[in-house]
Amino acid sequence: MTMTEAERAREMFARDQACQTLGIRLDEVTSGRAVLSVRVTGAMVNGHGIIHGGYLFLLADAAFAYASNSRGPIALAQHAEITFLRPVPVGEELVAEAVERTRHGRSGIYDVTVRRADRQVVAEFRGHSVLVTQVPR
Amino acid sequence: MTMTEAERAREMFARDQACQTLGIRLDEVTSGRAVLSVRVTGAMVNGHGIIHGGYLFLLADAAFAYASNSRGPIALAQHAEITFLRPVPVGEELVAEAVERTRHGRSGIYDVTVRRADRQVVAEFRGHSVLVTQVPR
Amino acid sequence: MTMTEAERAREMFARDQACQTLGIRLDEVTSGRAVLSVRVTGAMVNGHGIIHGGYLFLLADAAFAYASNSRGPIALAQHAEITFLRPVPVGEELVAEAVERTRHGRSGIYDVTVRRADRQVVAEFRGHSVLVTQVPR
Amino acid sequence: MTMTEAERAREMFARDQACQTLGIRLDEVTSGRAVLSVRVTGAMVNGHGIIHGGYLFLLADAAFAYASNSRGPIALAQHAEITFLRPVPVGEELVAEAVERTRHGRSGIYDVTVRRADRQVVAEFRGHSVLVTQVPR
Repeated sequence: MTMTEAERAREMFARDQACQTLGIRLDEVTSGRAVLSVRVTGAMVNGHGIIHGGYLFLLADAAFAYASNSRGPIALAQHAEITFLRPVPVGEELVAEAVERTRHGRSGIYDVTVRRADRQVVAEFRGHSVLVTQVPR
Repeated sequence: MTMTEAERAREMFARDQACQTLGIRLDEVTSGRAVLSVRVTGAMVNGHGIIHGGYLFLLADAAFAYASNSRGPIALAQHAEITFLRPVPVGEELVAEAVERTRHGRSGIYDVTVRRADRQVVAEFRGHSVLVTQVPR
Repeated sequence: MTMTEAERAREMFARDQACQTLGIRLDEVTSGRAVLSVRVTGAMVNGHGIIHGGYLFLLADAAFAYASNSRGPIALAQHAEITFLRPVPVGEELVAEAVERTRHGRSGIYDVTVRRADRQVVAEFRGHSVLVTQVPR
Repeated sequence: MTMTEAERAREMFARDQACQTLGIRLDEVTSGRAVLSVRVTGAMVNGHGIIHGGYLFLLADAAFAYASNSRGPIALAQHAEITFLRPVPVGEELVAEAVERTRHGRSGIYDVTVRRADRQVVAEFRGHSVLVTQVPR
C-alpha cells in the first residue's frame, strides 16, 4: 500500500526537530503544494527589534521542503532566494504557501509567498530542488 | 565620542534575541566584514536528519547583518540568496564570514561563505542591503 | 487624455533598439503583464552550439520591462535571476510571458516563464523592479 | 598533447557567434578566471535610452562561461543572478571579470563584476554551473 502525500508529509514532519521546536505547523500538503504557519516569538527577533530574516527564510524553506517532497522520493534544496517586503513584529501569525512552478528531470522550482494574518505579503521566496535517492551525509 | 564598529556591533548583538537563543557567537566585526559561528544542535535538524537549510541561511544572514550594519546607521536586508553545497550533521561547528562586495548609494552587496570546522564550504550566500534612517514597523 | 498601457508600451517599444534589432515582438501588454516572442537565429548561438543564455535572459528581461512599465511612470530593473531548464536550438520560436507577482511601495516582483513553441518551459526568470521619476544617466 | 586553458577558450570562442556578432572580446582566460570586454552600441539600447540589462547579463554570462569552461570538459549554466547598479550609456567600454568562487563535485559558483572604463562597478553577477560530458540538444 502506498502512502498518500499527506501521510508521507506527516511522517517527515514527526522527525522535523527544527519545525517542531519553533512551533511551525504543517497545515496542508497536496501534490506540489504545502501550507505551513507559525506565530512569531520574542526569540525570533534580531538586533533591530524585528523578526530575523533567517526565520522568515526558514518558514518559507520548510514550506518549499514539504511541497517538493510531496513529489518523493527525497527532494533536497540546492538554492533559494528570498525578498523581504515588510517588517514583521513579535506576536504576528505568518502563513507560508508553497506552489510548484515547474519540474524538469530531477529538478524543480517552487514559489513560496509568506503572508501576515491580514494577508499582506511579507516575503517572496523561490526554491530550487533536486530529487535524490538518499540523503548525503 | 563616536563608537567603533566593534562597539556598535556588540550593542546590536546584545539586543539580538535570535542569535543569542541559538548560541550564535559574534567573533569579529570590522569595516564591511563580520565573522559569526555556531554549533549545530539537534533542534536544528529537519525531517531528513540534516541541518535545516533555514538555520544555515540564518547564520549567513546574521553575518551579512553585522557586516552591513558596520556601515551604519541602519542597514536592512532587501534580498538574499543561498546555495547549499554540502550536508551538515549535528554537532558540527560552523563559521560564516561576510565580506562587502560593493556599495552604491544606499545599496550594498555582501558575500557570505559558511564553512565547517575542516574549512570545507557548506553554503555560499549573497545579501543585498539598503541603508535606512529608521527601522520600519 | 491618458494613454492606455498598450499605447505607452508601443511608444517605449518604438525606441527599444535592443528588441527591434533582435526581431523581438511585443505581442501583448496589459496591467502588470506582457508577452514577447522571438525566433532564435544563428547569431544567438554560443560556443557550445546552443542559444547563449544571455539572449534567453534578454527576452525574459524585456518581457519583465514591459510588464513593470505598464505600471508607470518609469520602472527600472534592480535585480533579476534566471534558471535555464532546457537547451534551445537555432530556429526555435520562443515566447516569454511576464506576470506581476507582488508590489510594495515603489518595488515590484515579476515572474517570467520562457517557453518553446511546443509549450515546454526553457527558462524561469524573476525580476525585481523599482519605480523612478526619471532615468539615471 | 593536451590543450592549455587559453587554447580551449580560443577554440570555443571561434564558434561563439553570439559574442562575435556583438563585438565582445576575449581578453584573458586562466584557470577558473576570464576577462571579456565590449563597447556598448546603439543597438544595445532599450526603450529608456540606456543599455538593455540583457546585454549586461550577456557579457557577464559569457565571462562566466569562459571561466567555468576553463575547468572542462563542458560546463553549462544552470542558474544566474544579476544586480544592476549604475546605468550605462552608448559608447561606454565595459569589462567583465569572472572569478571562480567555489566548486563541489560537478557544480561551480562564479562571481562576475562588470565595470566601466573608469572602474566603477555597473553590475554584479553570480553564476551556477554544472559539468556535463555532452551538450544536451
